[in-house]
Amino acid sequence: MAAKYLDAIMLFGDSITQGAWEFNGIGARFAHVYARKLDVLNRGFSGYNTEWALPVFEKIVAKHHEQQHVPPVRLLIIWFGTNDACLPGQPQHIPLERFTENLSTMIDMIRSPTSPFYSPVTKIILIAPPPVNTYQRGADLASRDPPRELDRQFEATKRYAQEVLAVGEKEGVPVADVWTRLWEAAGQDERSLEQFLYDGLHLNEAGYQVAYDELLKVIRDNYPELRHDQMSYVFPRHDYLYDHSVEEFKAKLFN
Amino acid sequence: MAAKYLDAIMLFGDSITQGAWEFNGIGARFAHVYARKLDVLNRGFSGYNTEWALPVFEKIVAKHHEQQHVPPVRLLIIWFGTNDACLPGQPQHIPLERFTENLSTMIDMIRSPTSPFYSPVTKIILIAPPPVNTYQRGADLASRDPPRELDRQFEATKRYAQEVLAVGEKEGVPVADVWTRLWEAAGQDERSLEQFLYDGLHLNEAGYQVAYDELLKVIRDNYPELRHDQMSYVFPRHDYLYDHSVEEFKAKLFN
Repeated sequence: MAAKYLDAIMLFGDSITQGAWEFNGIGARFAHVYARKLDVLNRGFSGYNTEWALPVFEKIVAKHHEQQHVPPVRLLIIWFGTNDACLPGQPQHIPLERFTENLSTMIDMIRSPTSPFYSPVTKIILIAPPPVNTYQRGADLASRDPPRELDRQFEATKRYAQEVLAVGEKEGVPVADVWTRLWEAAGQDERSLEQFLYDGLHLNEAGYQVAYDELLKVIRDNYPELRHDQMSYVFPRHDYLYDHSVEEFKAKLFN
Repeated sequence: MAAKYLDAIMLFGDSITQGAWEFNGIGARFAHVYARKLDVLNRGFSGYNTEWALPVFEKIVAKHHEQQHVPPVRLLIIWFGTNDACLPGQPQHIPLERFTENLSTMIDMIRSPTSPFYSPVTKIILIAPPPVNTYQRGADLASRDPPRELDRQFEATKRYAQEVLAVGEKEGVPVADVWTRLWEAAGQDERSLEQFLYDGLHLNEAGYQVAYDELLKVIRDNYPELRHDQMSYVFPRHDYLYDHSVEEFKAKLFN
């Protein structure tokens, strides 16, 4: 026995993606609204930056000759930057230019006809990392045993978020600008970000709500064929069987 | 591009399964605790009974010759009965003996070596349907436009739940007895079930909590190798990369 049948949405990112099933996060919300339409695959890797994620990406996407056997990914959502933006000297830090290169490499792997992972059926969305609340994050790290120094700065994460927008512009890939949406929702006040971040870094339910709304808008504006409210169930609604026999139903499924 | 790599848990059932991403339901909870270990595939079909679900089952599980190409389902969770137990005359009603047969057919499809869907790697759990609160359900149906008559009875659903236990006993398949757990949690008082059912039929967050706890217990007692807290991540934790180069990491992934 094995799983098959539904096409998929793949969420590829760091802890903010891995945690997307908690707090009514974007994983749980997407899985709910795309139920019976698309499967939602969580490929979030807590703590990863783009440099570490790249070799993993080669393992989790199918090569061209394998694609006929596995469910196609209709939508790939790439959400990195939070860890890449750690300050220089931190183990997760990736220089900005390299971050840019890595995002472009991921996109090219899927979009370049000469790539072994080429998949013209896959649409891509980038997400900008959320702003960091260094007051909250600093307090969290200081409270640990042993206490740790602040590992991120507000302006650094902002630069990485802006870079995601720049990559999207250059590559022609739509961007869900979660950084700006959260910043605006917090009244452009760093301390007020605590409404949306439970530890200064990771989204709580309100934060995921902002990310979800922004993602739905990007889908609506760029890939209307992937709007959950425009897609049909793969299998009929149950009331089809109020008016049809099981034999008619089977004929519909298997012919 | 296509999805691959993680083995899967498949949740196969009716609306109570389809809705399992809402209200911190078992879909969302399982997806969270099995993140980076197993994918959770929701194959819930609102309104379906076992008779209608059987042909769909043939479409969503891979035949033997296809299995090498798709992620194996390590755990299949079958949760029906709520609709089968509708009263005779209702379009969703399935006679008790036929319900029993259908559950056994699903199990045999996976376990019988002569079945085209035979999959010895797949473990199975049955779930008994929750008790119905006919006070709540009756009020819900009466409030519709046009008003509808009560379509289920407490004792009928109880019989179908008991039958799931009997099938499990006969087939040697463990059962998560969500009926009894909810009944006990409600102090064996039908009206008190409203703590766990938002409309007399479907689970709310507290109801899914009871189902989740019972399922974890059944996994722990019967399939300890599938305990989420005993399984390892498929890909290394990020701090592996604090002590190893990206080249060492790649060698680990690709060799």
